[in-house]
Amino acid sequence: MTSELNRFTAVLFDMDGVLYRGSRALPGVSEALAFLDARGVAYACCTNNATMTPAQYEAKLARMGIHMPASRIVTSSVATRRWLETQAPRGTGVFAIGMDGLRTALFDDGYFVEDEDHPAFVVVGMDFEVTYRRLRKACLLIRAGARFIGTNPDTTFPAEDGIVPGCGALLALLRVSTETEPFVIGKPGPTMFRAAIEILGADATRTLTIGDRLDTDIAGARAAGLASALVLTGVTTPEMLERSEIQPDFVFRDLVELREAWVRAG
Amino acid sequence: MTSELNRFTAVLFDMDGVLYRGSRALPGVSEALAFLDARGVAYACCTNNATMTPAQYEAKLARMGIHMPASRIVTSSVATRRWLETQAPRGTGVFAIGMDGLRTALFDDGYFVEDEDHPAFVVVGMDFEVTYRRLRKACLLIRAGARFIGTNPDTTFPAEDGIVPGCGALLALLRVSTETEPFVIGKPGPTMFRAAIEILGADATRTLTIGDRLDTDIAGARAAGLASALVLTGVTTPEMLERSEIQPDFVFRDLVELREAWVRAG
Repeated sequence: MTSELNRFTAVLFDMDGVLYRGSRALPGVSEALAFLDARGVAYACCTNNATMTPAQYEAKLARMGIHMPASRIVTSSVATRRWLETQAPRGTGVFAIGMDGLRTALFDDGYFVEDEDHPAFVVVGMDFEVTYRRLRKACLLIRAGARFIGTNPDTTFPAEDGIVPGCGALLALLRVSTETEPFVIGKPGPTMFRAAIEILGADATRTLTIGDRLDTDIAGARAAGLASALVLTGVTTPEMLERSEIQPDFVFRDLVELREAWVRAG
Repeated sequence: MTSELNRFTAVLFDMDGVLYRGSRALPGVSEALAFLDARGVAYACCTNNATMTPAQYEAKLARMGIHMPASRIVTSSVATRRWLETQAPRGTGVFAIGMDGLRTALFDDGYFVEDEDHPAFVVVGMDFEVTYRRLRKACLLIRAGARFIGTNPDTTFPAEDGIVPGCGALLALLRVSTETEPFVIGKPGPTMFRAAIEILGADATRTLTIGDRLDTDIAGARAAGLASALVLTGVTTPEMLERSEIQPDFVFRDLVELREAWVRAG
């Protein structure tokens, strides 16, 4: 029932396939954000991608004409950092495999310190430059008792030249060599959504997630106990939706249709 | 019944835990080999380790006083090369992740050629210098149709500083990122044992395998339809043997006891 849309006071957007595709904004994005602003609905973006910083994402979105402040961009690196802070005091040692997005989130303000010898946590995110030596080190540290954390479970991601290994593939290597399950922050787990709700100061029972993937966005929203809307501007086709056991609360062709339904809901 | 030992005309030894441990020969090795020579029993060594060449192994064994010609040392790299030869003609392109042991076996005589663009096979062995870039390349090539081969399934191996990721961990990364199962040559699969029997020109029904691990040596011998003897000089304790579903045909404390039993068998 789209008439229920007017009960939401916060929205969490997935990014790729919802706000843009490739390097182009999808239809109705700016209008949707302006509508939410006008209604006083808080919003943020959530992405499993751990490689870029929120500032880098803000710049990327701005190049497509989408205005989203870095403070509203919750990457799995940002969520990992926030979650770790609930687990360990300032000064705790962390060994990280990852890129700018993760390193900035973990280390830039000095709350956590890099520790290659006796870290409390080994945090693994996607790293295009990772080597066996570094994965070997992570294996030894996890076997020595460091807690094993993954930023996101994606086993692959699309690159210009094809489908390539993602963070989840690095986690698979370490899972079999350490015989330890990582705690994974990103979708379809609930932890990243919870971080975004905290950042917005939102009410989870009145928060709508909007995504294009059933197995991550919609399943993750359900795991976090959040309402969800699927848009068909990304990877999911109507046929995939029909066959799936994972069903969203709402389905819209795109953000144009979602905004129109919300306007009608009053 | 150890009286059956005298029916064997060939022996396949596992190496670490059977012939030596660390860098020291185990008791009775040279006497056992001399006994087999005197009886006219053919023998070879089989190891899942794909990193060293047979010549490097020959030198390593010689430093411990064990004389084993390189031609009788069947690594998983050697077995991989032999198996590939049954699958593809001279000049076939191969993309390899691996070290000296694998590269020498695959490329030194020019039967296979290195191909980073359109290889028929992607062969993955242990590589202490492997990088994400190379694993990414392997992922793209397997997804483009190259057949995915692993030298051995060991997810870990013991290093000086602890248990570290092995070939099977690299295979796990590629398995989840390609959604493809590798064909794996080493133990507990039967392919390496079959290669060793071919090299010896032996009769499989009269070949005894001798190993120290139930889950690789003994299980692999069974998969290849070979008789097996467990020695207790490696990782397996009598308690582990008692609890295991995998049972060898013979059990000996060490190669001294095995040789004595064989002498008594006449």
